[in-house]
Amino acid sequence: MKTIDMNCDMGESFGVYKLGSDEEILPHISSANIACGFHAGDPSTMRKTVKLAIENDVAIGAHPGLPDLMGFGRRHIDLLPEEAYDIVSYQVGALWGVVQSEGGHMRHVKAHGMLYNRATQDPELSDAIARAVYDIDPNLVLFGLAGGEILKAGEKVGLKTGSEVFADRTYQENGTLTSRREKNAMIEDADKAGDQVIRMIDEGKVQSQQGKDVDILAETVCIHGDGPHALEFAKKVRHKIENASINVHPIE
Amino acid sequence: MKTIDMNCDMGESFGVYKLGSDEEILPHISSANIACGFHAGDPSTMRKTVKLAIENDVAIGAHPGLPDLMGFGRRHIDLLPEEAYDIVSYQVGALWGVVQSEGGHMRHVKAHGMLYNRATQDPELSDAIARAVYDIDPNLVLFGLAGGEILKAGEKVGLKTGSEVFADRTYQENGTLTSRREKNAMIEDADKAGDQVIRMIDEGKVQSQQGKDVDILAETVCIHGDGPHALEFAKKVRHKIENASINVHPIE
Amino acid sequence: MKTIDMNCDMGESFGVYKLGSDEEILPHISSANIACGFHAGDPSTMRKTVKLAIENDVAIGAHPGLPDLMGFGRRHIDLLPEEAYDIVSYQVGALWGVVQSEGGHMRHVKAHGMLYNRATQDPELSDAIARAVYDIDPNLVLFGLAGGEILKAGEKVGLKTGSEVFADRTYQENGTLTSRREKNAMIEDADKAGDQVIRMIDEGKVQSQQGKDVDILAETVCIHGDGPHALEFAKKVRHKIENASINVHPIE
Amino acid sequence: MKTIDMNCDMGESFGVYKLGSDEEILPHISSANIACGFHAGDPSTMRKTVKLAIENDVAIGAHPGLPDLMGFGRRHIDLLPEEAYDIVSYQVGALWGVVQSEGGHMRHVKAHGMLYNRATQDPELSDAIARAVYDIDPNLVLFGLAGGEILKAGEKVGLKTGSEVFADRTYQENGTLTSRREKNAMIEDADKAGDQVIRMIDEGKVQSQQGKDVDILAETVCIHGDGPHALEFAKKVRHKIENASINVHPIE
Repeated sequence: MKTIDMNCDMGESFGVYKLGSDEEILPHISSANIACGFHAGDPSTMRKTVKLAIENDVAIGAHPGLPDLMGFGRRHIDLLPEEAYDIVSYQVGALWGVVQSEGGHMRHVKAHGMLYNRATQDPELSDAIARAVYDIDPNLVLFGLAGGEILKAGEKVGLKTGSEVFADRTYQENGTLTSRREKNAMIEDADKAGDQVIRMIDEGKVQSQQGKDVDILAETVCIHGDGPHALEFAKKVRHKIENASINVHPIE
Repeated sequence: MKTIDMNCDMGESFGVYKLGSDEEILPHISSANIACGFHAGDPSTMRKTVKLAIENDVAIGAHPGLPDLMGFGRRHIDLLPEEAYDIVSYQVGALWGVVQSEGGHMRHVKAHGMLYNRATQDPELSDAIARAVYDIDPNLVLFGLAGGEILKAGEKVGLKTGSEVFADRTYQENGTLTSRREKNAMIEDADKAGDQVIRMIDEGKVQSQQGKDVDILAETVCIHGDGPHALEFAKKVRHKIENASINVHPIE
Repeated sequence: MKTIDMNCDMGESFGVYKLGSDEEILPHISSANIACGFHAGDPSTMRKTVKLAIENDVAIGAHPGLPDLMGFGRRHIDLLPEEAYDIVSYQVGALWGVVQSEGGHMRHVKAHGMLYNRATQDPELSDAIARAVYDIDPNLVLFGLAGGEILKAGEKVGLKTGSEVFADRTYQENGTLTSRREKNAMIEDADKAGDQVIRMIDEGKVQSQQGKDVDILAETVCIHGDGPHALEFAKKVRHKIENASINVHPIE
Repeated sequence: MKTIDMNCDMGESFGVYKLGSDEEILPHISSANIACGFHAGDPSTMRKTVKLAIENDVAIGAHPGLPDLMGFGRRHIDLLPEEAYDIVSYQVGALWGVVQSEGGHMRHVKAHGMLYNRATQDPELSDAIARAVYDIDPNLVLFGLAGGEILKAGEKVGLKTGSEVFADRTYQENGTLTSRREKNAMIEDADKAGDQVIRMIDEGKVQSQQGKDVDILAETVCIHGDGPHALEFAKKVRHKIENASINVHPIE
């Protein structure tokens, strides 16, 4: 029986500010990427989210981001590779502290926002992130965009990796995601999104916007946790995946 | 042979801002309390400081503070006990991440500034800090003011504790430190400071400002790392201690 | 014809985080207290809010808070009076910069959260805030709790003041608000809230929780902009006030 | 008699962290660019610096930077032009609040660090900065690198501008500064630095590293306030300038 992980960004609230529907989404995913205080999240939000993940038996991962709460980690900041290494160590450690004190276990790391996007195309930045993760715990799984530099860097340092695909995003014939600035970047129909994921898992292929099929490795699929239809979307995609006799389970 | 630990606050620089003479002081102490990014310190400063501590074979401890870089953690912030628990987990974890990736080992935790001062007198706050430390790693040693609530809370949750005394501060007959606002709060003569520490270790006593001897347990002595004479002071105090046939060594 | 100002805290979003229903509430109030970036708000949110206030012909005020985004300015931070003076100058100036560049005009200042609460009872802190406001612009109106120290300090330095009452809070016989920790602290019925305000304006009295009437000066009434019923509540209270032939208008 | 302004970055301390020798340098310059809290500076440091500038009869300018205290505003952050506009309004306003409350007068604005560097080459970013300054006060003088986009944008919106040259930096034949990564980027000899400035003022020319003379407009010369020899350097350059019968005076 085939297996896929379903991951979602979580714990992105900050103080009085609420973001996402963590409590509602958690029963429908297998891995939670928890913000670590730089682009979102604060120590109390992190604890609350870790508790919820444990209660829902969802694998816990760190979701380190750029030090830019005002920009939610989505604005490029030109860090040196060693600065990237340092902020990843710090944030993964911070979440580890919270997880440890809740009796939980950290399984994976996924970079957030612009740190993820830049690393996808930047071998040096990817290497810094991968080494930071490995040097903390070589058993952690490093998530990154299917085909991107993060996965290559992770493999090179000796980490298990999670090749990430998107249910609700379309792809280009070179295997990258269609930019959000383009129309047709998003797949809003949950049935189509589910079908795309199932084909990725079953056949290792996705049809690009240019019509041509592209090879893609789907080990973990990203589900978006915000937006008015996030919960319904997550439920439907999971339902379709399970109906196709695919097992939803964290990467091990 | 009697033993004492000599500890010093370290890693309190931030970005371009330099504070303290870590590199110079480290050869003369046995334990470094490293700032964790809330009152001082940033990920790159933390790494640099951890490396230096390892090179100098000095025991590494976390030095979590209040979230107030502008006030250097010295202004009271009225946190709920669970908020204190959360910021301690976060900061101890963050330093753990850095220590882990440098192949080091964290040995102790000491609260910083106003978090330390308030906890000294507040059993509920002390309990929150002690539980946060224990829940991350029950083998960590919790430092706190001799006779204060932090030590009681640490013992209660099952932590090994480090009863902290000051070389360069005078004491009141109730065992507390003379407020810095009073004259005679500081001992500026390194010889006198050394003598005070030696008597604390040898006899378990310190002469208070009121003239009366007070019982005091000296397991770790705090050395200040800033100020123009910090290095000279540290050297002299250590020299006196060793000349009195007292071994300088981290608490184990 | 009698006159009352209706004020509401605004611009409390931060980056991607949304708080309050500013756009909906603005047509129903006469004064907006706009967060200045310390407890909430960021430069872009401030500009957006200033624009909306100008479009709705609502008087613009600065709403400076404690430097604690994580605690939304609601946790006490033990500032020196001169530190309070400095953070008020800074924040009022920052909003002035935004207002100026939008061609608007700043009319009033109201301290936020714990800065407001502490100042209400602390003459020294109130004096620092009042002087900071006066020294920037002696024509600004300083808002503060009816009967509290902020108003006294404002009058003393020569500022016009706005005596603030609450529509949805109950009062104690000493004229203070019932603590939110008590039941009966809140008035959830908009009719009752409106009646309380009208009596304050018409008779200068409010019935305390102990039954006794208390003298109170109502120059501006605070409307809460968050919560699911905020908009409906604001509309109803305004409707009742206008039906009682009271003019809703900023303090001049 | 010819005139030149001598400017220096000031107020870059933060909380307990001290940077620069403001008090010593101020008597030797004519314009102070004061940090506004984003890359450096805090409200109390800003006030102290404004007071010193007033006491020394030095023209006060705002020195807004990128929101990155950890990186001292020297790391590129990819802001939208409207975000740049907003952070400049905010910071210039914040300093205005402090200046106003000290009875002073703001005369100029100079962007800091990477905001300055990027704007020098980016017409859109320069336009955003220039409009932000003009919209707050059209009488402010906008400083920018001689020949760079900031000056063009300033002139376009109708601001008086200050064409900035460097005493201690060498130039390329296209009129840009030699990168600090190159050797020969810095002029460490104060005599040579002074001679370079005097020739810029007298002849409107500077000799480039390639040997060729380049046209340059010197209206304000930047003096560095940090480093062990900053004070001596500032004194010598000023002395040479005055000996060449050039008047040191803020731009009016």
